[in-house]
Amino acid sequence: MESKNVTYHPESLEQKLERYRPDPAIRVVMLPKDTNALGSIFGGVILSQLDLAASEEARIAAGRNVVTKVINEVDFVAPVEVGDWVSFYTRTERVGRTSVTVHVLVVAHRGHRRDELFQVTDAEVVFVAVDEEGKPAEVLREE
Amino acid sequence: MESKNVTYHPESLEQKLERYRPDPAIRVVMLPKDTNALGSIFGGVILSQLDLAASEEARIAAGRNVVTKVINEVDFVAPVEVGDWVSFYTRTERVGRTSVTVHVLVVAHRGHRRDELFQVTDAEVVFVAVDEEGKPAEVLREE
Amino acid sequence: MESKNVTYHPESLEQKLERYRPDPAIRVVMLPKDTNALGSIFGGVILSQLDLAASEEARIAAGRNVVTKVINEVDFVAPVEVGDWVSFYTRTERVGRTSVTVHVLVVAHRGHRRDELFQVTDAEVVFVAVDEEGKPAEVLREE
Amino acid sequence: MESKNVTYHPESLEQKLERYRPDPAIRVVMLPKDTNALGSIFGGVILSQLDLAASEEARIAAGRNVVTKVINEVDFVAPVEVGDWVSFYTRTERVGRTSVTVHVLVVAHRGHRRDELFQVTDAEVVFVAVDEEGKPAEVLREE
Amino acid sequence: MESKNVTYHPESLEQKLERYRPDPAIRVVMLPKDTNALGSIFGGVILSQLDLAASEEARIAAGRNVVTKVINEVDFVAPVEVGDWVSFYTRTERVGRTSVTVHVLVVAHRGHRRDELFQVTDAEVVFVAVDEEGKPAEVLREE
Amino acid sequence: MESKNVTYHPESLEQKLERYRPDPAIRVVMLPKDTNALGSIFGGVILSQLDLAASEEARIAAGRNVVTKVINEVDFVAPVEVGDWVSFYTRTERVGRTSVTVHVLVVAHRGHRRDELFQVTDAEVVFVAVDEEGKPAEVLREE
Repeated sequence: MESKNVTYHPESLEQKLERYRPDPAIRVVMLPKDTNALGSIFGGVILSQLDLAASEEARIAAGRNVVTKVINEVDFVAPVEVGDWVSFYTRTERVGRTSVTVHVLVVAHRGHRRDELFQVTDAEVVFVAVDEEGKPAEVLREE
Repeated sequence: MESKNVTYHPESLEQKLERYRPDPAIRVVMLPKDTNALGSIFGGVILSQLDLAASEEARIAAGRNVVTKVINEVDFVAPVEVGDWVSFYTRTERVGRTSVTVHVLVVAHRGHRRDELFQVTDAEVVFVAVDEEGKPAEVLREE
Repeated sequence: MESKNVTYHPESLEQKLERYRPDPAIRVVMLPKDTNALGSIFGGVILSQLDLAASEEARIAAGRNVVTKVINEVDFVAPVEVGDWVSFYTRTERVGRTSVTVHVLVVAHRGHRRDELFQVTDAEVVFVAVDEEGKPAEVLREE
Repeated sequence: MESKNVTYHPESLEQKLERYRPDPAIRVVMLPKDTNALGSIFGGVILSQLDLAASEEARIAAGRNVVTKVINEVDFVAPVEVGDWVSFYTRTERVGRTSVTVHVLVVAHRGHRRDELFQVTDAEVVFVAVDEEGKPAEVLREE
Repeated sequence: MESKNVTYHPESLEQKLERYRPDPAIRVVMLPKDTNALGSIFGGVILSQLDLAASEEARIAAGRNVVTKVINEVDFVAPVEVGDWVSFYTRTERVGRTSVTVHVLVVAHRGHRRDELFQVTDAEVVFVAVDEEGKPAEVLREE
Repeated sequence: MESKNVTYHPESLEQKLERYRPDPAIRVVMLPKDTNALGSIFGGVILSQLDLAASEEARIAAGRNVVTKVINEVDFVAPVEVGDWVSFYTRTERVGRTSVTVHVLVVAHRGHRRDELFQVTDAEVVFVAVDEEGKPAEVLREE
């Protein structure tokens, strides 16, 4: 019964992380060129990498090129700062006939030991598998 | 009753555009540096500009700095190509006590005359107004 | 005789704007990555967007690809800062047999309401219409 | 005795990987903006990320900021292409009084399933720990 | 009367170069990220480096920071391509009380031996010397 | 006998420079977009330009395209700051049958007069000459 009422941040992030692949699809360090006029990291930088990370996951699941179809609710929980080390963890949620749905969890690591972890955002992204001409195509099942 | 069965593309985009400010919050030309490995425009570039465009609209409504809180469903209708001219049209949907909800319509203009218009995507973005320290703050009503 | 003594800034900018298309050819938000060593926006960023904005105007007038031939006097009236929202307004000045001359007016919008407008610079840019091989070609008249 | 004479590529890369942390310090997708005039990925892009990856490892070992002092022999084994997914694996080699030596192994993942792995390069990078003023400082031992 | 009929390209570029400092203020290699939608180098990239090169020359002449005031006629003689090596040669034209006028000659070097030289453009740029607050200030004469 | 015991910095840099081509292979101005989280210039920016500069030297020596094979010890002597003007001087060290070894000396120029010179780093880079398909090929001797 130990974790029943324990909902504070570190545990819950660890628990969430267990539902994703252990190593991140994308991991980057934030630099001053990534900031907005307020001095924190520009949301577009996070969204760009989130889209790339999800597409890596989807591509592996589809066995072919994929294009982004829908990005569902992206809720920004905490701002990212210059110098943060940011990981984009992914998992495949559903594989349809021509589509793959991926979930992404974005985690920032702060502090010199990189041991202050917190969730930046998460999102669900739907991709469509495409053939060499960019036309929708069936997902290739792995043998 | 005239528009009841008229659902083909050009009209419907024109009708949609009537619900947004007449001039775009952001308008850019897509360059080769904005492409993904498939040669079309990288989704992250669209998402970045979409976020910036929405924040311009929200900032005007809030009368102060804003930070992105939630991006709701972004549905990519059509891919953008190098050389396209892309406009991000916005409108304020709701102004809460400390938040502003903005709608963005992304339109690409193609062809030498820039007269081939089509919708790229649209999205709803929720912002939180913040004070000089980046803390949530009340939206300032215009006198 | 009405405009004789009226030379103060806001009016004159409004009057100038009347001679350009109502919506800008390019509109962007300036970010920290666009700054020079002095902390204001790097002139090259303004010149780049000015060239792109003018080429959009020229392409529409020529009905084909255009390449920049001459940029006439660019007079920087006021510096641009991080966070400014900058609009590049254009008008076609002259259409020759194989060339198009475009005028660009660059305006910054500052303040949370974006209601502090001032002229950044203006310039005249001459383009040459080119065919698919990049060779000079006649401007295509619109029917 | 099974791996004694087996020196062909895949195994040897797997064996090498065992000597590094299991998850990469940096992982990125290569885009067209990262190419050189020959169309493959510009060496500077790899070197930049290699330096960032090594500095993440060194920072964790030093418990404070670090600056790059020496990059030892970087041997480019294979070119990286647009669309490759590239991982920078690291391990701490030596921790001195004010310095940390890190080893980096750069691996590209190619193919839609990302199951074609090959070594891009590896390098040893020496960092100096610095205090808040950027002066050399002693490495902080973890308690 | 010696130069009357001698108008062919190589000589005249060499002669022009004699009127500039022997080593360039800026020298760069053009990469795919610098291209426009037509595949040649984006004019904005040339203009950006031209402005930086001229400001280096002006800063040395002024002995303090300078800001770009006017860029006079920039005439694009020849397009630049990916892989070209481009040099920005400068000379100080006039030093006023608070301003410095600089001339820039932009030369591309093409071919593996970099021995195919041609003029890309040239321009005159006027700078204003500024103090630490960015206010116009007198040019400092070298002792 | 005058320089025997004179080993302090300025002279030795001048002496070093005599062993390189008089004009730099690359020369750039460092901008805020080139900084790392500590506010000085990101090592990757220096490494990128160092690689480009060396490849220009090697390409001239080889008379054909070259790809980076090995970068030997890069020792960072001094940090580079925003606004510094940085020159990459090169010389060809050895020309093999299919390879070219180049030495690069990186020098920063600081101060308004650009008369404070100091060495940033130096490195030896080995390139392999390649044919149009990117396959190793013999260096072409100049006639």
